[in-house]
Amino acid sequence: MSGPPTAEGVFGAGARLAAEAARFTSFGWMRGTSGNLSEVVSRDPLRLAVTASGLDKGELTASDVAVVGPDGASVDVPGVTPLVPSAEAGLHARVAAVTGMDAVVHVHALNAVLAGHHWPKGVRLRDVETLKGIGRLAHDDEVVIPVIANSQDMDELGDRFEAVYDAGVPAVIVASHGLYTWGPSLHRARHVTECVEWLLAYAIAIR
Amino acid sequence: MSGPPTAEGVFGAGARLAAEAARFTSFGWMRGTSGNLSEVVSRDPLRLAVTASGLDKGELTASDVAVVGPDGASVDVPGVTPLVPSAEAGLHARVAAVTGMDAVVHVHALNAVLAGHHWPKGVRLRDVETLKGIGRLAHDDEVVIPVIANSQDMDELGDRFEAVYDAGVPAVIVASHGLYTWGPSLHRARHVTECVEWLLAYAIAIR
Amino acid sequence: MSGPPTAEGVFGAGARLAAEAARFTSFGWMRGTSGNLSEVVSRDPLRLAVTASGLDKGELTASDVAVVGPDGASVDVPGVTPLVPSAEAGLHARVAAVTGMDAVVHVHALNAVLAGHHWPKGVRLRDVETLKGIGRLAHDDEVVIPVIANSQDMDELGDRFEAVYDAGVPAVIVASHGLYTWGPSLHRARHVTECVEWLLAYAIAIR
Amino acid sequence: MSGPPTAEGVFGAGARLAAEAARFTSFGWMRGTSGNLSEVVSRDPLRLAVTASGLDKGELTASDVAVVGPDGASVDVPGVTPLVPSAEAGLHARVAAVTGMDAVVHVHALNAVLAGHHWPKGVRLRDVETLKGIGRLAHDDEVVIPVIANSQDMDELGDRFEAVYDAGVPAVIVASHGLYTWGPSLHRARHVTECVEWLLAYAIAIR
Repeated sequence: MSGPPTAEGVFGAGARLAAEAARFTSFGWMRGTSGNLSEVVSRDPLRLAVTASGLDKGELTASDVAVVGPDGASVDVPGVTPLVPSAEAGLHARVAAVTGMDAVVHVHALNAVLAGHHWPKGVRLRDVETLKGIGRLAHDDEVVIPVIANSQDMDELGDRFEAVYDAGVPAVIVASHGLYTWGPSLHRARHVTECVEWLLAYAIAIR
Repeated sequence: MSGPPTAEGVFGAGARLAAEAARFTSFGWMRGTSGNLSEVVSRDPLRLAVTASGLDKGELTASDVAVVGPDGASVDVPGVTPLVPSAEAGLHARVAAVTGMDAVVHVHALNAVLAGHHWPKGVRLRDVETLKGIGRLAHDDEVVIPVIANSQDMDELGDRFEAVYDAGVPAVIVASHGLYTWGPSLHRARHVTECVEWLLAYAIAIR
Repeated sequence: MSGPPTAEGVFGAGARLAAEAARFTSFGWMRGTSGNLSEVVSRDPLRLAVTASGLDKGELTASDVAVVGPDGASVDVPGVTPLVPSAEAGLHARVAAVTGMDAVVHVHALNAVLAGHHWPKGVRLRDVETLKGIGRLAHDDEVVIPVIANSQDMDELGDRFEAVYDAGVPAVIVASHGLYTWGPSLHRARHVTECVEWLLAYAIAIR
Repeated sequence: MSGPPTAEGVFGAGARLAAEAARFTSFGWMRGTSGNLSEVVSRDPLRLAVTASGLDKGELTASDVAVVGPDGASVDVPGVTPLVPSAEAGLHARVAAVTGMDAVVHVHALNAVLAGHHWPKGVRLRDVETLKGIGRLAHDDEVVIPVIANSQDMDELGDRFEAVYDAGVPAVIVASHGLYTWGPSLHRARHVTECVEWLLAYAIAIR
C-alpha cells in the first residue's frame, strides 16, 4: 500500500466498507446516518477511504466513499468523484496513523454510550473469555477501555485519543457519542467491534 | 408539487411509504396494524398520500394508500381507487401544514411511549452527539421533545401539537400512544425517527 | 366451512400456519419447538388444522399439520397423512369452540410469561392507544388480560380458560407457560398477538 | 458411525455446522469469532467435526471444519485439508464422550454469562413449561443448570464438567465464558440451546 491510491483500490475499499456498514446498521449501531468506517488505501502518503457524509449506512454502494489525507481533508484520486468525507475523517486518519492499523470503525452503539456514561474514567474489564476476542487474556488481565470527552474539533479529539491510547486495547469510547475500534483489516475490526460491544453490554448488565 | 395530484404521483408516494413502513415494521415499531406514514403529493391544494387503515404495515403495496386533504378527509384522485385513510390522517395533514415538511412518520415505538410516561412535560436532551442527527448541536444545546396528551379527536390533537410545536424539534410524543416525526423527505424523516428513538432509548437507560 | 374438511383445505391452512409460525419464530416467540398455531377448517363438525408436534416452527411446510376434533384428538382426512398433533391441540379446539373464532395462536413470548409472573390475577391495562389493536378503546376502558394456572391436562386448562373468558378480550396468559390469542382469521390473530405482546412489554417496563 | 470418518461425512457435518452457526450468529450468540459447534462423525474411534478456529461463525462453509480425536487434537482424514480446530475442541470431545450425544453447541450467549454471574453454584429452574423443551417436566421438577469455573486448560474444564454432569440436564454454563449444550443431533441441540437461553433470560428477568 505504498504510492498513491488508485480508483480501483478506493472502490474496492468502498465495497468492503459498504458491506460492513450494512452489517452494523442491521445491529442498530448506525441509526440515522450516524457512524463512519474507513480503510487505509495507502500508507505513504497516508490515504484513507472513508464512508461519505450524510448517507444511510445501510444503503451505501462502493462509490459512496471519500478519500482523505492525514488531516481528514479530501484528496483527489484520478477516476474518483470527490465526495464530502465524514466530519470525523480526521479522527479516523489519526487513529490509523497512531495505531498503524488499516481499518477503523466508528459506530453509535448504545451500549458504548451508556458505558461511557457509567464509567467516564474508563471501563474496567477482566476475567471474561470474550476478552480473548480483542487480543487479551481470559484470566487475570485487567483491560480498561478508555473513555474520552466528546468534541467537534477533530484535532482536539485526536489529541485526547493519543493521550489515552494503549496499544493493547483496540477501542476507545467517545463519551456521549459512540465507539471507535480498529484492526489490521476491516474483517478483524468487525470482530473487535462485536466483542467490545458484547463486553460493554455485559459490564452494564452486572454493574 | 403544485396543482392537483396525479395517480402516478400517488402511487410513487405509495411505493416509498410501503418500503419505509416495512423497514419500521422490522424494528417492531408498527406492531399489529399500528402507525401510519404520509407524504405530501401536492401543496396547493394540500394533499397527502397516507397509508391506508387497517393493513399490516410490513405488507403494503404501492396502491395501499389513501389521498387526503387538510382535514384528513379522503379526496378523489382520477385513477386512484379510494381507500379508507388512517383515522390519524388529519394529524398528518396538520403536521405537514404547520411544519411545511413533506413527510410525516407515526410509529408506536415502545421507547417513545415509555419516554412519554416518564417525562409527561417533555423529554429533555442535551450533550449527545446523536442530537446532530435531528439538526441540533452535540454540545450546550438543550432540546426538549414535546409530549402531548392523547386524543381520538384529530382537531384536538392537532391543536395540542401546534401549541407545543418548536420549529427546531422535528418530533412530538403523543403520550400513551406513540411518536410523530417529520422531515423534508421520507428518507430524511426516517433518519429523524431513528435518531429520536435512539435518543429516547438512551434517556430511558440512564434515568 | 360446513361439512367435512378436505385435503386441499387442510394444506391451505397448513401453508398459512407455516408462514405465520415462521414470522413468530423470527420474533423469538417459538424457541425450540415451542408454541403451536391452528385454524378452523370445518365448523360442523368442528375440525382444526394444528401445527404438528415436535417440529421447528420456523421450518414448517404446508403438510406439517394435523387435523383434530373438539377434544384435540387426531381425525382422519382423506389425502392427509395423519401427524401427531400438538399436545395442546385440545385447548386450541376449546378456544375455537368457545370464542367462535377461526384462528388460535399460542406462543412462548417471554413478556407474556413475565406478565403472568408479575400479575397472577390478570394484567390490567388502560389508556393506551394500542388497546385499539385488540378491539378496545384508547381511553377510559379497563382491559384485563386473564391469567390462568398452567396444567398438562387440556380439559383442566380448557375449564380454566372458560372460567375467565371475556368475549371482549382476545387473549389469555397461561402462567409459567405462554400466551394464547385468537381472531376471526390467522392474519387478525397475528395482529392481536403483536399488540398484546407490545402491551405486556409496556406494562412490564413501567411497573 | 463406526469406522474411520470419510471426507464426505466430514463435509456433510461441516455444512450442517455452518448453517447452525449462521443461525446462532444471527441471534448475537457468536459475536466476533466466538463459540464453536461440533458433530460426532465417528464413534469408534471417536472423531468430531468441529468448526475451525478464528473464523466468523456467520460465514462458514462446509469445509471450514477440523476433525479431532478424543483429546481435541487434529486428526487426518483423507481428502480433508487439516484446519486448526477450535482451542475448545477438547471439551467438545469430552462432552460427546461423557454424554454419548452426537452434537455439541458452544455459544457466548450473554444471558448464559449473566446467569453464571448471578448463580455461580448453578441456576435453579422449576415449574416452567419451557423445561419440557429440554426433556424435563413443567411441574414439580427442579432442574439445576450447572455452572463451572472457566479455564484455558481443556482437561481441567473437562474434569469440572464431568464433576457436575447430570444426565438429566443437557447444558452447562462455563462462568465468565458461555454456554455448552448437547443433543442426539445438531437439530435437537439447537432446540435445547434455544430453550435453555430462554429459561435463563426468564430467570434473570424475574430474579
